[in-house]
Amino acid sequence: MNTFGEKFKFTTFGESHGKALGCIVDGVPAGLKIDEEFIQAQMDKRKPGKSKFETSRKESDKVEILSGVFEGISTGTPIAMIIFNENQKSRDYSNVKDLFRPGHADFTYFHKYGLRDYRGGGRSSARETAARVAAGAIAQLLLDQLGIKVQAGICEIAGIKSEQIDFEYSANSTIFALDKDIESKQKDAISQALKEHDSVGGAVLIKASGVPIGLGEPMYHKLDGQIAAAMMGLNAVKAVEIGDGIEASRSKGSKNNDQISSKGFLSNHSGGILGGISNGDDIITKVYFKPTPSIFIEQQTVNEQNEDTNYYLKGRHDPCVAIRGSVVCQAMMALILADMVLLNMNSKMDNLKAVYN
Amino acid sequence: MNTFGEKFKFTTFGESHGKALGCIVDGVPAGLKIDEEFIQAQMDKRKPGKSKFETSRKESDKVEILSGVFEGISTGTPIAMIIFNENQKSRDYSNVKDLFRPGHADFTYFHKYGLRDYRGGGRSSARETAARVAAGAIAQLLLDQLGIKVQAGICEIAGIKSEQIDFEYSANSTIFALDKDIESKQKDAISQALKEHDSVGGAVLIKASGVPIGLGEPMYHKLDGQIAAAMMGLNAVKAVEIGDGIEASRSKGSKNNDQISSKGFLSNHSGGILGGISNGDDIITKVYFKPTPSIFIEQQTVNEQNEDTNYYLKGRHDPCVAIRGSVVCQAMMALILADMVLLNMNSKMDNLKAVYN
Amino acid sequence: MNTFGEKFKFTTFGESHGKALGCIVDGVPAGLKIDEEFIQAQMDKRKPGKSKFETSRKESDKVEILSGVFEGISTGTPIAMIIFNENQKSRDYSNVKDLFRPGHADFTYFHKYGLRDYRGGGRSSARETAARVAAGAIAQLLLDQLGIKVQAGICEIAGIKSEQIDFEYSANSTIFALDKDIESKQKDAISQALKEHDSVGGAVLIKASGVPIGLGEPMYHKLDGQIAAAMMGLNAVKAVEIGDGIEASRSKGSKNNDQISSKGFLSNHSGGILGGISNGDDIITKVYFKPTPSIFIEQQTVNEQNEDTNYYLKGRHDPCVAIRGSVVCQAMMALILADMVLLNMNSKMDNLKAVYN
Amino acid sequence: MNTFGEKFKFTTFGESHGKALGCIVDGVPAGLKIDEEFIQAQMDKRKPGKSKFETSRKESDKVEILSGVFEGISTGTPIAMIIFNENQKSRDYSNVKDLFRPGHADFTYFHKYGLRDYRGGGRSSARETAARVAAGAIAQLLLDQLGIKVQAGICEIAGIKSEQIDFEYSANSTIFALDKDIESKQKDAISQALKEHDSVGGAVLIKASGVPIGLGEPMYHKLDGQIAAAMMGLNAVKAVEIGDGIEASRSKGSKNNDQISSKGFLSNHSGGILGGISNGDDIITKVYFKPTPSIFIEQQTVNEQNEDTNYYLKGRHDPCVAIRGSVVCQAMMALILADMVLLNMNSKMDNLKAVYN
Repeated sequence: MNTFGEKFKFTTFGESHGKALGCIVDGVPAGLKIDEEFIQAQMDKRKPGKSKFETSRKESDKVEILSGVFEGISTGTPIAMIIFNENQKSRDYSNVKDLFRPGHADFTYFHKYGLRDYRGGGRSSARETAARVAAGAIAQLLLDQLGIKVQAGICEIAGIKSEQIDFEYSANSTIFALDKDIESKQKDAISQALKEHDSVGGAVLIKASGVPIGLGEPMYHKLDGQIAAAMMGLNAVKAVEIGDGIEASRSKGSKNNDQISSKGFLSNHSGGILGGISNGDDIITKVYFKPTPSIFIEQQTVNEQNEDTNYYLKGRHDPCVAIRGSVVCQAMMALILADMVLLNMNSKMDNLKAVYN
Repeated sequence: MNTFGEKFKFTTFGESHGKALGCIVDGVPAGLKIDEEFIQAQMDKRKPGKSKFETSRKESDKVEILSGVFEGISTGTPIAMIIFNENQKSRDYSNVKDLFRPGHADFTYFHKYGLRDYRGGGRSSARETAARVAAGAIAQLLLDQLGIKVQAGICEIAGIKSEQIDFEYSANSTIFALDKDIESKQKDAISQALKEHDSVGGAVLIKASGVPIGLGEPMYHKLDGQIAAAMMGLNAVKAVEIGDGIEASRSKGSKNNDQISSKGFLSNHSGGILGGISNGDDIITKVYFKPTPSIFIEQQTVNEQNEDTNYYLKGRHDPCVAIRGSVVCQAMMALILADMVLLNMNSKMDNLKAVYN
Repeated sequence: MNTFGEKFKFTTFGESHGKALGCIVDGVPAGLKIDEEFIQAQMDKRKPGKSKFETSRKESDKVEILSGVFEGISTGTPIAMIIFNENQKSRDYSNVKDLFRPGHADFTYFHKYGLRDYRGGGRSSARETAARVAAGAIAQLLLDQLGIKVQAGICEIAGIKSEQIDFEYSANSTIFALDKDIESKQKDAISQALKEHDSVGGAVLIKASGVPIGLGEPMYHKLDGQIAAAMMGLNAVKAVEIGDGIEASRSKGSKNNDQISSKGFLSNHSGGILGGISNGDDIITKVYFKPTPSIFIEQQTVNEQNEDTNYYLKGRHDPCVAIRGSVVCQAMMALILADMVLLNMNSKMDNLKAVYN
Repeated sequence: MNTFGEKFKFTTFGESHGKALGCIVDGVPAGLKIDEEFIQAQMDKRKPGKSKFETSRKESDKVEILSGVFEGISTGTPIAMIIFNENQKSRDYSNVKDLFRPGHADFTYFHKYGLRDYRGGGRSSARETAARVAAGAIAQLLLDQLGIKVQAGICEIAGIKSEQIDFEYSANSTIFALDKDIESKQKDAISQALKEHDSVGGAVLIKASGVPIGLGEPMYHKLDGQIAAAMMGLNAVKAVEIGDGIEASRSKGSKNNDQISSKGFLSNHSGGILGGISNGDDIITKVYFKPTPSIFIEQQTVNEQNEDTNYYLKGRHDPCVAIRGSVVCQAMMALILADMVLLNMNSKMDNLKAVYN
């Protein structure tokens, strides 16, 4: 269950403090130019330690392609990518070895598997998402060829909402803020939490444009369903909205329906998806991250023997996981769309005839 | 892509106005007593025409088991169930045959497949969910054997929120209302929309209790991710929350973390899921449905030739799809949990030894 | 695990003596003309009771399409087909209810599932293959559109081998014999076995022509691997050969290699598959069926309590399952090729551009 | 499609002359002791260059575990293994760069993907099987815990058949010969082929003992079907037999049926599988490899422009691929059985109760 996707699929491996992490991307059509600089640039956006709003763990996150690319072009065979961990030995885990950090997966992993790699959360660490970003970069290269563009940025921190949506600005913001006028307030909220040894949550807005009509497979592999799965499956995510989301449920049919004209839809309450299938409009999703569970305040917990204890965290952690999470959201959206592009190839006989004639 | 689940899986077929619809449930362990009355009772909860808050289409939705059960017990082979459509010929679709109803999947199905069954939306109709409820009933029978209980009810209609959560009351409410004090206001909102030929949205609260620790498969088949996929994949759903959902993203780590004592978690902000794995607490999900797109107010649309036209709907429709949708949410949650129960059997060597010795 | 295929996939249900059997075919591209007469004609080739060389069980095997077809054309949604059992009540199973028939799956089903449907073998009966033939007929309709033709016939009965390969003759032979000069000897061998209350085995030759170069997905979904899985998974099959098969292993490289000229391959020892991918030549497979385990001679066995007993079969059975098995082999080959046709659509970027531009 | 297995699954990557090859093994239950020496010992059995009967390419095939193991024990998370290629730069491929080697996958890969990695066959090289052997070793460690043992050896070279079956002897034979009295004749056949610059084929016998009753999932994931898929999917394999194989098809029911006594089956013509499910007896399979297509004799072929040309191979190649292939057959059998062990956990409610109580 460490594989995502049906046709454009990737399988990840690796733990927070293991030797390496990485992925195998399977199903990349042959003939795609693999731009390694672009892949590394995506990695660099996600990598830790770039500002005080992120964990101070230092990782260069240099990705190396091991297979599947020949003379710079995909060959149709699996593309393996590896990222060696560099900064994994610097900590002492003796104080978490035997107990479960509140808000983390320590408790559930231990009970599910009967044992766990306690070093930095092991497999449950968000460090695994580095591999997703590498895979997502290849998905973006494929989508580029078809004119599909995916963007993501921060639309809310600690309840402070962006009003403007400016993806160009976001790309260069240290917190990927979509609204430059709100950005400083959002940064202040993070700084304040840091000062209090606490953490804050946030939300990410993802937009895909240039999406052809028809992506999404009914009934159980719908585009909105898969977006929800991918986003809710990210560490710390607790809610996903498509289009108007919760507000839609408080609207009326007469207002919420996107009426149609010969020039296109007259509104986009739906977020670009009807019946689980893209309708050609922008695909709009919001993803909500809880505050980082790692805080530097004493908390109550139990150890592996289920004995009560108090716990005081040491270490380095992101004060707001939504920030670097936004890069992962963008990668996941690209991965879903690339998969849907491939799946949709089989939708009608005309497509078969276009390929086989 | 008409199959859901990995081990406890079901595949559905059928259109709104075809001969029949149904499903094959594959992966049901042998030796489960199949209580046909219970299955039919679940069908009856979802079937249309029970009150003015629902479409007036009449379907008895009598389910017939065709295979997989011998002398009342599952045999481990696929259980096929069929529901014949009874009321499918009563309408004239001449006025929708050539055009796309706003808010419906007509537009996207036509463009994806190059043709469509225009009778009542064909496959895109929520009528397909009858098959899910049949499959979900079998899942509930399995969960019963392990002490797991799934409940669902309406927690919001047209923005009017329930304050109390009473699943016993909900079970007997015509609108599955969770709060008996708020119910009449919620009903009024629907009645008002009906009077205005409009529709309203709503939200469903789903609770699973008695869930063992350890359900959910990292990384790409997490419990929360699969819940999100299943719920967002339902017709008209636009948002899904787990636990505190969006509110969590506006909380602080110190408040949102569920601290742990030797007697269990001290709170349940997480909605019973940590790292995508059940933690033994109640699993709590909220699912938000948009207002029914079928309204009896003139709307602007285009036909298959992309010519502008106005459209005025005839027919019978639910004024608020969340109501009957709540039965489907319950079924989907049961189906996910049954699947996760089976998947989790392989988590550790001790389980293998328990089975093979 | 009752589903076959990745993209053109089908799921079957039903037991030998249940109410009905059938399948859901998922992944059929929209826009395919569904010729119901052709489907029924395939069913008729497989149905029992057509000659003394087959079981005398009478089933009309009338197939009914329940969904997925609108105005005679596939809509891209699941096509459900149902075949009601007619002749399932005629036998008394009291003498097999408690014991395991040698050579049958009674023993293994009972131990795997803890119980079993003893009526005619339940799910383990070859009657399940009726659903495969229905699905296979749809696959053949798709292949027809691309100029791919699949044929099958009997090339060996009781060790008596065909020398000529004439699929036209085979199509009209009561035992689907490929060699009209050998047919009578093959029939005699069956008649002799019948007289001795015994049974014989046989072999089926399957040929697919017009197959485009490129079908088959490395590494673990190769064309030859999938053919082997599909054929070996048929009841009573004990060996599968591709191309020269075992003889190839006794040849030398210099002789076995198919050299290549600008006009094509100079020989076809490979059976049309290189590296698991079709090379454009005819795909040739041989499938070997064991003699029917149902014989009318006393045999030693045990009952469910593992007590020794002797067993004397009553009932109706095919004296040589390879005969009707050949129709199923043809269906399975068509199903594999239809699936491979769809899977191969994603092999290169040029195909994507052909579809999305 | 580079993934094998449903629950105990592995995904491989890498080409003959790329940087590295390896695999991710997903689904290994937590709590399994991972004996790295055992894994390396299996690798050493398969690695090239151990005798004149194998290619002279030198690879140490040292496997490194990157993830999924903590303190020597599996954690339930994906186990990635990597093998760096060492000897991949030693050849000049200029003479094969533009043309298709007869009997190889060059032709089909080029046409399927539109381009190819011509260095040693790229992904189509049997070098990929190194990753299978690494994965298979972990499968064997799991099977050991349940008392299941898998063995394989050479039963035929160039048509010269073994008469005795001695797996202990085979383990130490340079050609893994099962019959020490026939071994020298088999070696002579290879030596003679080498002298003639030609190659020979062979066959592998695989035996699994200690297999519990009940492994194998009807209908489309039967044990025999999956064995056939795995074996036929190996490079150069052209035939697979289960139990008596082709001989069974020439037998009679009265002779071929394995009658049953309270002490077990009275014979094992079936090869330990009934209805696709293990019956507790030894599982017996024979796998037939064609002669190595790489021969040092001039052959006719075409280039990428489909122009006729003659071709004379240089390089290093196994004169008989069945020999090292036998190690891969053993690995694949172990992988199938490990997968089936996990899948079968869900067969009956009693198993669920054993795990969840």
